[in-house]
Amino acid sequence: MSNKVLWSGRFSGAPDEGTLAFTSSLSVDSVLAWYDAVGSVAHAKMLVEQKIIPRADGDKIIAGLKDIIAQIEEDSFDFNETLEDVHSNIEFDLTEHIGEAGGRLHTARSRNDQVATDFRMFMRDVVMDSAESLLVLQGALIAKARLNVDTVMPGFTHVQHAQPVSFGFHLMAHVFKLQRDVDRLLDSYKRLNVSPLGSAALAGSTYPIDRQMTARMLGFDGPTHNAMDSVSDRDFALEYSFCAALIMDHLSAMSEELVLWSSQEFGFVEIADAYSTGSSIMPQKKNPDVAELIRGRTASTTGNLMTMLMLLKGLPLSYNRDLQEDKGTVIASYETVTACLSMMAPMIATLSVNKERMLAATSQGFLNATDLADYLVTKGVPFRQAHEIVGKVVRHCIDQNKRIDDLSVAELKKFSAKIGKEVKGFISVQSCMNRRTSYGGTSPASVNSQIEVAEEVANGQVEFCDAERDRMVKVWNDLLRP
Amino acid sequence: MSNKVLWSGRFSGAPDEGTLAFTSSLSVDSVLAWYDAVGSVAHAKMLVEQKIIPRADGDKIIAGLKDIIAQIEEDSFDFNETLEDVHSNIEFDLTEHIGEAGGRLHTARSRNDQVATDFRMFMRDVVMDSAESLLVLQGALIAKARLNVDTVMPGFTHVQHAQPVSFGFHLMAHVFKLQRDVDRLLDSYKRLNVSPLGSAALAGSTYPIDRQMTARMLGFDGPTHNAMDSVSDRDFALEYSFCAALIMDHLSAMSEELVLWSSQEFGFVEIADAYSTGSSIMPQKKNPDVAELIRGRTASTTGNLMTMLMLLKGLPLSYNRDLQEDKGTVIASYETVTACLSMMAPMIATLSVNKERMLAATSQGFLNATDLADYLVTKGVPFRQAHEIVGKVVRHCIDQNKRIDDLSVAELKKFSAKIGKEVKGFISVQSCMNRRTSYGGTSPASVNSQIEVAEEVANGQVEFCDAERDRMVKVWNDLLRP
Amino acid sequence: MSNKVLWSGRFSGAPDEGTLAFTSSLSVDSVLAWYDAVGSVAHAKMLVEQKIIPRADGDKIIAGLKDIIAQIEEDSFDFNETLEDVHSNIEFDLTEHIGEAGGRLHTARSRNDQVATDFRMFMRDVVMDSAESLLVLQGALIAKARLNVDTVMPGFTHVQHAQPVSFGFHLMAHVFKLQRDVDRLLDSYKRLNVSPLGSAALAGSTYPIDRQMTARMLGFDGPTHNAMDSVSDRDFALEYSFCAALIMDHLSAMSEELVLWSSQEFGFVEIADAYSTGSSIMPQKKNPDVAELIRGRTASTTGNLMTMLMLLKGLPLSYNRDLQEDKGTVIASYETVTACLSMMAPMIATLSVNKERMLAATSQGFLNATDLADYLVTKGVPFRQAHEIVGKVVRHCIDQNKRIDDLSVAELKKFSAKIGKEVKGFISVQSCMNRRTSYGGTSPASVNSQIEVAEEVANGQVEFCDAERDRMVKVWNDLLRP
Amino acid sequence: MSNKVLWSGRFSGAPDEGTLAFTSSLSVDSVLAWYDAVGSVAHAKMLVEQKIIPRADGDKIIAGLKDIIAQIEEDSFDFNETLEDVHSNIEFDLTEHIGEAGGRLHTARSRNDQVATDFRMFMRDVVMDSAESLLVLQGALIAKARLNVDTVMPGFTHVQHAQPVSFGFHLMAHVFKLQRDVDRLLDSYKRLNVSPLGSAALAGSTYPIDRQMTARMLGFDGPTHNAMDSVSDRDFALEYSFCAALIMDHLSAMSEELVLWSSQEFGFVEIADAYSTGSSIMPQKKNPDVAELIRGRTASTTGNLMTMLMLLKGLPLSYNRDLQEDKGTVIASYETVTACLSMMAPMIATLSVNKERMLAATSQGFLNATDLADYLVTKGVPFRQAHEIVGKVVRHCIDQNKRIDDLSVAELKKFSAKIGKEVKGFISVQSCMNRRTSYGGTSPASVNSQIEVAEEVANGQVEFCDAERDRMVKVWNDLLRP
Repeated sequence: MSNKVLWSGRFSGAPDEGTLAFTSSLSVDSVLAWYDAVGSVAHAKMLVEQKIIPRADGDKIIAGLKDIIAQIEEDSFDFNETLEDVHSNIEFDLTEHIGEAGGRLHTARSRNDQVATDFRMFMRDVVMDSAESLLVLQGALIAKARLNVDTVMPGFTHVQHAQPVSFGFHLMAHVFKLQRDVDRLLDSYKRLNVSPLGSAALAGSTYPIDRQMTARMLGFDGPTHNAMDSVSDRDFALEYSFCAALIMDHLSAMSEELVLWSSQEFGFVEIADAYSTGSSIMPQKKNPDVAELIRGRTASTTGNLMTMLMLLKGLPLSYNRDLQEDKGTVIASYETVTACLSMMAPMIATLSVNKERMLAATSQGFLNATDLADYLVTKGVPFRQAHEIVGKVVRHCIDQNKRIDDLSVAELKKFSAKIGKEVKGFISVQSCMNRRTSYGGTSPASVNSQIEVAEEVANGQVEFCDAERDRMVKVWNDLLRP
Repeated sequence: MSNKVLWSGRFSGAPDEGTLAFTSSLSVDSVLAWYDAVGSVAHAKMLVEQKIIPRADGDKIIAGLKDIIAQIEEDSFDFNETLEDVHSNIEFDLTEHIGEAGGRLHTARSRNDQVATDFRMFMRDVVMDSAESLLVLQGALIAKARLNVDTVMPGFTHVQHAQPVSFGFHLMAHVFKLQRDVDRLLDSYKRLNVSPLGSAALAGSTYPIDRQMTARMLGFDGPTHNAMDSVSDRDFALEYSFCAALIMDHLSAMSEELVLWSSQEFGFVEIADAYSTGSSIMPQKKNPDVAELIRGRTASTTGNLMTMLMLLKGLPLSYNRDLQEDKGTVIASYETVTACLSMMAPMIATLSVNKERMLAATSQGFLNATDLADYLVTKGVPFRQAHEIVGKVVRHCIDQNKRIDDLSVAELKKFSAKIGKEVKGFISVQSCMNRRTSYGGTSPASVNSQIEVAEEVANGQVEFCDAERDRMVKVWNDLLRP
Repeated sequence: MSNKVLWSGRFSGAPDEGTLAFTSSLSVDSVLAWYDAVGSVAHAKMLVEQKIIPRADGDKIIAGLKDIIAQIEEDSFDFNETLEDVHSNIEFDLTEHIGEAGGRLHTARSRNDQVATDFRMFMRDVVMDSAESLLVLQGALIAKARLNVDTVMPGFTHVQHAQPVSFGFHLMAHVFKLQRDVDRLLDSYKRLNVSPLGSAALAGSTYPIDRQMTARMLGFDGPTHNAMDSVSDRDFALEYSFCAALIMDHLSAMSEELVLWSSQEFGFVEIADAYSTGSSIMPQKKNPDVAELIRGRTASTTGNLMTMLMLLKGLPLSYNRDLQEDKGTVIASYETVTACLSMMAPMIATLSVNKERMLAATSQGFLNATDLADYLVTKGVPFRQAHEIVGKVVRHCIDQNKRIDDLSVAELKKFSAKIGKEVKGFISVQSCMNRRTSYGGTSPASVNSQIEVAEEVANGQVEFCDAERDRMVKVWNDLLRP
Repeated sequence: MSNKVLWSGRFSGAPDEGTLAFTSSLSVDSVLAWYDAVGSVAHAKMLVEQKIIPRADGDKIIAGLKDIIAQIEEDSFDFNETLEDVHSNIEFDLTEHIGEAGGRLHTARSRNDQVATDFRMFMRDVVMDSAESLLVLQGALIAKARLNVDTVMPGFTHVQHAQPVSFGFHLMAHVFKLQRDVDRLLDSYKRLNVSPLGSAALAGSTYPIDRQMTARMLGFDGPTHNAMDSVSDRDFALEYSFCAALIMDHLSAMSEELVLWSSQEFGFVEIADAYSTGSSIMPQKKNPDVAELIRGRTASTTGNLMTMLMLLKGLPLSYNRDLQEDKGTVIASYETVTACLSMMAPMIATLSVNKERMLAATSQGFLNATDLADYLVTKGVPFRQAHEIVGKVVRHCIDQNKRIDDLSVAELKKFSAKIGKEVKGFISVQSCMNRRTSYGGTSPASVNSQIEVAEEVANGQVEFCDAERDRMVKVWNDLLRP
């Protein structure tokens, strides 16, 4: 066949080279090659089973596709840049090798359902992969938290000293954020894992195809229910884009903390040399570049989500070529998420914690003021009054340039007669931390419980991912190595 | 108490009026009033049960709060604009009415966990409400689809005639999109429905509080696991914002179609006068304003999601005042979603369908070309060749200004000797539609199956919502009317 | 007239109440009331001059409009919520008061050109106002910079100590950012200040109108050139939205610095009590809430820009109702910009600078390392080698827990024989700052020059704004008080 | 030199490979290579002139850089992927070839000012290039408009027939939008075209550098005023990103129209085969893919702008590594704008206009209703009443399934006694168009004036671009070929 597009019959002139370059999706959709060829194997098997194409032709097609799959797997498949997309590449290559039988493969399908199928297969791996990367980072955080259950640091609100907390407790806050990220990804999986194959152009097929069969062979939970929805639906790509943007927002918070904590002013942590870089002009510099880049790359995942949402706005059904822009955008977010998670995990694992500096910092900022108020409440003062009294104590200390701990019991008594000498036991930083034993609190006992809960949740998430991976291995074995 | 903020003790000067106006959240968070007062009832009950405050004081507090709840319910609670937020309003009002006991209510909590609790309670209703509005629109679409299972119209890809489809089939495509929207909302519910109450400022509490008890009293599945995460977490608000943006993208597609279909050029439908408006200058105009506004308002829900994602970027833990911006943004999206869904449903229900015009339109654009190719395949021609042959038939028709149906069998035979006279039965528009019987296809039988599937799914979603509504009624009765 | 819309003739049924509520723009466009009435005065005058309507009717219309303008100015105009927009409100009110003559006002115009005209008039004030608010903040920054030309602080890159800088220099960096913001606003003014009035619905008018005349009367530079462009163009609103988003990005950087600098760890500044708030639970807290809220509100201006860009995407010409969403979105950005600038200026003006703490901070982080390298270059060492040598000095100091200044000349000589005793004069922090005399550098002399340049630019910007304000006063006097 | 980063001295361990890959910007910033080398030539010349480095070394450096420039120009420069950025690549290559003298090039500068300089030089070409591409498209539109001044088509508001317009008039609406785009780009040029070179890391330099000299040699208007602003300022990149997003919004409107107009329902135009593609399944399809892709790619330029605005949010001064993300984002927008403009221009130029179909369409939708109302106004009926009367005429026609033209004068008289037989001359579609002679209106005379105005503006814009291009040629000749 001399023409190199799948649709030349109706046209009077050859397509413009500039147009082919402009409309080509090959630079992006070549990542779908394996999925495309594998999806075609399933389609061809079904066509044979349903007697839509002769078994002999089907066998040739399947053998040819397996050759192509092997080439893709060993990265030796030769993409032809002048063909407009990955689907054309594979179909033309197949026909070149097996002859006329190749022309029967596209029976009862369209590129519209084909690309939707390929994309969903690809996204299954993207979702699993992202979930697993999140789980690795969770592991690093939990391990570091376990070592720092007793490490006292200032807890912050408004970047102001608030109450003393355990560093392990702070790290666990991030773990729970990441667990929700995994949860969201896994929830999206069920909406993703359905097969559009057989929806054809937009209206289904006149051939006696069996969509349940292809869905099963490709590891999907079942077929989609409406062909027109199937070729226009990109919700799964948007949902992943959102998950990615939120994951990155979470990483940006961690990154911001790493940047602040490794500043000269905070000095709470030191990032390993391996995750820092220097300056071309200032010889002393050790910059938290990796953390900064993660924070910066957060922006692009949100930008990508905006692209996706704007792309779909106002598009009537069913397929419109605008949709081609979806894959590059989603892949960009996926690559960002994967790269950033894979840097954050070892950066956390190798982080040096400066416990002395953290502890020293707790002497500033009246971190025990709430505890003094709470002490007064135990003496029968309503909380609102206790708050007012301690506010005055603090004001006094600021004016005198003192810490609350510096005041004698007698001095404290001037603010409230109810203060007794046992107050000192209440307001040591260590005690402030240890006495916050409420569920989810910062006391070492509470933090240890949180670690247990988090590990149980994480184990469940790991199990889900492992089971799904195992299932897919079996699916591919059944389809390709029978 | 003469000062009107909850934190004046430590400050030497009075707060600036401009600052109070700038930092006030009352215009937005007054929607939380009912939830705030109800949450306080649960908190007070727990404080009493745990013997953290005297029962007598607790009883006064609860009675006072119930008065306030009654006022909020009958819209007579008098908000004081000079107080910075809804929490201050309720606490000051309570203390004014019940005296010193009111000062004990804030024991063992902070506005940080209080606002997180109120916001989650509010968002439960937002999520339920949005799901239910989606279900109403689904109902309207399914009802209209049922009436149009047999209505033939051109199916479009690229806004070009593609293949004949049933109008009911087209409507069902939208139904399945909306069902995913509901599904996403209900999935988010489990991440939303956990109680941060008792997380206090960021580190938990030194009092022997029982967070499980307050969680249960407020209808939550349980308490959150880490206090620092709890006061900084706004994932549930982001997740709703995303759901809202995607719902609106789906509505924008419907709106675009209504705009196009009611144009002079399409003339497929007529929107009821009730959902159209006119022109101040052009007397003949009947404009699809409601559909246009829905399409336009789509933009703001995406803009709001942008706001939310950018708001969180680079914020270190734990609470930062930036978070105040979350509520107004989410509420704006909620109001848009609700208003647009409540307009779309009756607009669909009252839509006049111009079946003659739809049918007439199918005579243009060679909608049966695929079927002619499929016919050739049944004669043994590989699909790729069949496609090429039919492309030439179409080229010939364009040059001769004819439709495929206009060609005689003899003329058709010139393109392929395999064409026989039975071809005519294959390529009538009605036949093209009816023969697409594959699962999810456009044949009337397939569409009827889709309606059945969709109704079953919708029924499940309705049941979930109803059960949750019933459960919450019981929760509020138990808490407030024991 | 009993019907209350401007277009009922063609419709068979009354408009739906829900639809009127949904499509009403009154809550947003009532801010245009003054501009709308004033624009109508110009239109009416022109209609009389061009003999399109009788002078007697024109006089009644103008007198009636002046009454309405007076009511709007004293905030006593009674908006009727059941009318769909501000234009209907004014036209119905006018007709009610002056009778049939009122029905002649809308001759030769449409709401499409009317709203475009009103919106541009409104936006002129928005642009001027924003520019002036920026100039006020510039003034506050320059004044504070002038007081801190000699104040030494660590200069940061990557939030790491880099080189010593003057605090005045740091503040001037922000001034130059704001000057570009003003510049952008003023550039946009010429694209904004053209009159669409007379474009009518989309195609111009059949009446002998004089668009130059109305443009001149309303202070525009002239009429727009194409009616269809005129009624669909919202570029001016988008351009402002972008300017607003970038202004806020600049304010977010300042806010971030204020938050960091007022932390216990930095302690470089103290924000006045007037611009801080406290905590409901922690009596010691003084939080930089105003700075945090400015940083947070940055997000919504970017979100609003997203809304605007998405709103326009894919809209065919000419007017579509989607455009109604533009005004509320732009106004929200305007209000945010205005409020934030008006808080930032006094917050900067009243900021306490802790010079001792800033100076003390410069002893950490090897801020003079570049200067040691530069010193080596003056001794003939190529910069790349000098950088390498000083890197080793720093490594040595870190290992020994010393500052570079702590090393004796003899110790330094071990790293490079070229180091002599004059080195000590090169690497004092004060000297590092003072010797950066290059244009735009941080030496006091350079900073003083920057202040001069900035004031000259600012004066030019102020003059532009003042001249434009004066011109408009004259325009309104000529039109309304002849 | 064995180490391959510019900053290893201070570090105890080698940088991690993963970190180098993660932090590398080479894949993006290699587009800056030419600018980087050229900027270095100017820097080296200045260092020699100011006697900061020996002339002999300077000569070697300049000769070495010219070799590198030649290699870059002929695309033979060998980028080393293991070096972190383009700056390292060039500096290491230089030193390898000319020896130790190469190590003197980085005297008195930092990568912070270097990259800012390179980026601005690159962006000058981007801005010019985008402006010129816009001018080419303007040319195509004006040429097509000139051929269609008299072509009657329905003018639309709300995608409903509104009033008859000239197709040339419609095209000119787009021209004026694009002219504002050019205007914005050229306005941004003055803020862009200033030199940060010599700002060094963030604080200026201790060397006696001459920043005016390097600015002049590189064609800048002058140096920036504050070093800290200079290394942190990316406003120019944001401003271009916004211009790009708005350009694309304008192209998306054109694209939407092309998609609609080439549908079977409209049939107003036919896009050349060269800019269309077909379907893999439907042999008859000719899809407007290029227009759809332009519309779709609009989304990514807005997404990119969001990325840029979010990137900067909350970053304290001065340089932070987050900024590295700016270049790839801006370049992506530039490539999209360039590619889309370069497709749109020939697509417009080769567009077939179906004048018969356009004219036929004007018989639907009562396009002459406004003119009938205007006719009544000339008979003394107030416009508001005239509108009401014609509304009833239209209602009558709809009920009778007639056009207004179908009604006899006698029938029309029943609606208003003032209607006379001359009415027929007023309401022919041709007359409706021709009588809209107001400035900016759709009459052929008005459109011809618009073409004249547009050409004058475009000529001015072309002249600006040409002059700037000529100036830069001279600048480069002076610097590189003296």
